[in-house]
Amino acid sequence: MTAHLGVDLGGTNFRIATFASDGTTPLEVHKEEVGEPRDPETIVTRLAAAAERLAGPGEATLGVGIAAMLRDREGTVANSPHLRWRDVPFGKLLAARLGGRFALGVYNDVNAVVWGEAVGGAARGCRDVLGVYVGTGIGGGVIAGGQLVEGVSNCAGEIGHVKIRWDDDAAPCACGQRGCIEAYVGGSYVARRIADELGAGARSAAIELAGGAGLVTPGHVDQAAGQGDEWALALWSELAPMLAVVLGNALAVLNSERLVLGGGLLGRTPVLYELVTTSLMVAAPVAILEQLTVAPAELGDDAGLVGAAALARSGTSIIRG
Amino acid sequence: MTAHLGVDLGGTNFRIATFASDGTTPLEVHKEEVGEPRDPETIVTRLAAAAERLAGPGEATLGVGIAAMLRDREGTVANSPHLRWRDVPFGKLLAARLGGRFALGVYNDVNAVVWGEAVGGAARGCRDVLGVYVGTGIGGGVIAGGQLVEGVSNCAGEIGHVKIRWDDDAAPCACGQRGCIEAYVGGSYVARRIADELGAGARSAAIELAGGAGLVTPGHVDQAAGQGDEWALALWSELAPMLAVVLGNALAVLNSERLVLGGGLLGRTPVLYELVTTSLMVAAPVAILEQLTVAPAELGDDAGLVGAAALARSGTSIIRG
Repeated sequence: MTAHLGVDLGGTNFRIATFASDGTTPLEVHKEEVGEPRDPETIVTRLAAAAERLAGPGEATLGVGIAAMLRDREGTVANSPHLRWRDVPFGKLLAARLGGRFALGVYNDVNAVVWGEAVGGAARGCRDVLGVYVGTGIGGGVIAGGQLVEGVSNCAGEIGHVKIRWDDDAAPCACGQRGCIEAYVGGSYVARRIADELGAGARSAAIELAGGAGLVTPGHVDQAAGQGDEWALALWSELAPMLAVVLGNALAVLNSERLVLGGGLLGRTPVLYELVTTSLMVAAPVAILEQLTVAPAELGDDAGLVGAAALARSGTSIIRG
Repeated sequence: MTAHLGVDLGGTNFRIATFASDGTTPLEVHKEEVGEPRDPETIVTRLAAAAERLAGPGEATLGVGIAAMLRDREGTVANSPHLRWRDVPFGKLLAARLGGRFALGVYNDVNAVVWGEAVGGAARGCRDVLGVYVGTGIGGGVIAGGQLVEGVSNCAGEIGHVKIRWDDDAAPCACGQRGCIEAYVGGSYVARRIADELGAGARSAAIELAGGAGLVTPGHVDQAAGQGDEWALALWSELAPMLAVVLGNALAVLNSERLVLGGGLLGRTPVLYELVTTSLMVAAPVAILEQLTVAPAELGDDAGLVGAAALARSGTSIIRG
């Protein structure tokens, strides 16, 4: 019997799970802190040890979702700020360490998450899916005709770096360019903007809700917006159409059946979520909207594990060691 | 022996061709004016007669590229201004008329064109392709992982209706929405803008090149821009970054290997083409650009025939009669 494993490798923890034959029910989940040292050799050794233990002695499929920008379909990490890796042949190293009994695939973490939602979550049964996650940053994943869209260098879905402004005042983004949607609606930028505006004396019910201007999170802003707070509503009303245009534009090209929205920010800001989906109704072409449903992500932290395992199991971009 | 046929059905002519076993060399091409009446029954009867004659007595594959917005993968036309059709079950009608010996597929004409360029033109051998055609309007087609991206209702690739502005002054588009890139860079809008500005007294070398302000085409503007004409350069420098941002944003999501640019306007305006591709270098994420090549469309009028035939031959969205 072949064992089916999924890994979610982030900057803080890695988790690894075996799955039942349905592909979505975890049988055993193991979690470790990434900690230090976190050089590729150390992480590969630890991951392989955990995988070998969970897989047992037989054949296995192993899908890894990694918080990294990849460069190809063989798991080469171009850059992972989370792991502090650059130009690391992670897939090749792990495949060599695991040997031939493992069919290994390495995927961008957000791509794995979107695939997970399609396998057993908010996009179950859909063959054309756009998933967008607004957390600290903004990431995305695309499924077209039932296949994960990986792109030529496995960088597809980089919707956070879609340009929403291109004038001289466009906001600088951590990617080095300007005007990316992430630089407006990504969680770390939203948090800074909240701090800046409240620090400069803006008044808002969010301050009371948080117990101090320095403690206000996007969640407090959302609560305040829900109570009709003017500053909070103005901020959300500025950001929501920007994100909606980016979503609508991607949908115009993709004609997706299901848009899945999630992430640490959007998952905790129901008023913003509502404003985004409402704005989308004028931002996307009518023919595209007719066939579209929007749904919040369902699987939470498990989506990446489920998706990575399912991608490897489906034979997507298996690495030959 | 199975015959392989392709059809290009536009508002003025339809062409039908049989192809040699390489899939790209036409053996026989037949062309008719669409003319009047152009009701679905008449067109289906004429198309079927031509197809039966060219196919001979045996099995055949028949791919039709149609200038229409489709609603599904069975060739239902939601809307074709060119044919003046609305809600026409074209695929079902044609399949019923042709009978079981024909494996029929109906595709959006621009999707067929992009597939044609991938089969035997500017994107030969590429598995991840974005094709964008700027003619009277703007259309696009996407190939991901070697598969045509059709979308849930066969409307994928509608890049002409990506929003580039969403303020109150955003330009109205024929689609009924505002701020679409087509409403800025689509040929009919560019022509109107040229006429308006020159009619209002703008000075440009394009007027002399054309032999009169009322005769200036985008081609003349491009020539004038190439000679350093201030008005022409200003217009092109306004439009090029808008199109480049739309292209870069789609590429950020798709991570294509090849961007194919063509169409009646962009094919005749080399200075604009150059400005667009230069602007793209700052509009798309660096990781996306690293793997991208841009190429002008190669196959011209034949691309749609080649692509439609090849799509049907590959078994893409075959209609059961």
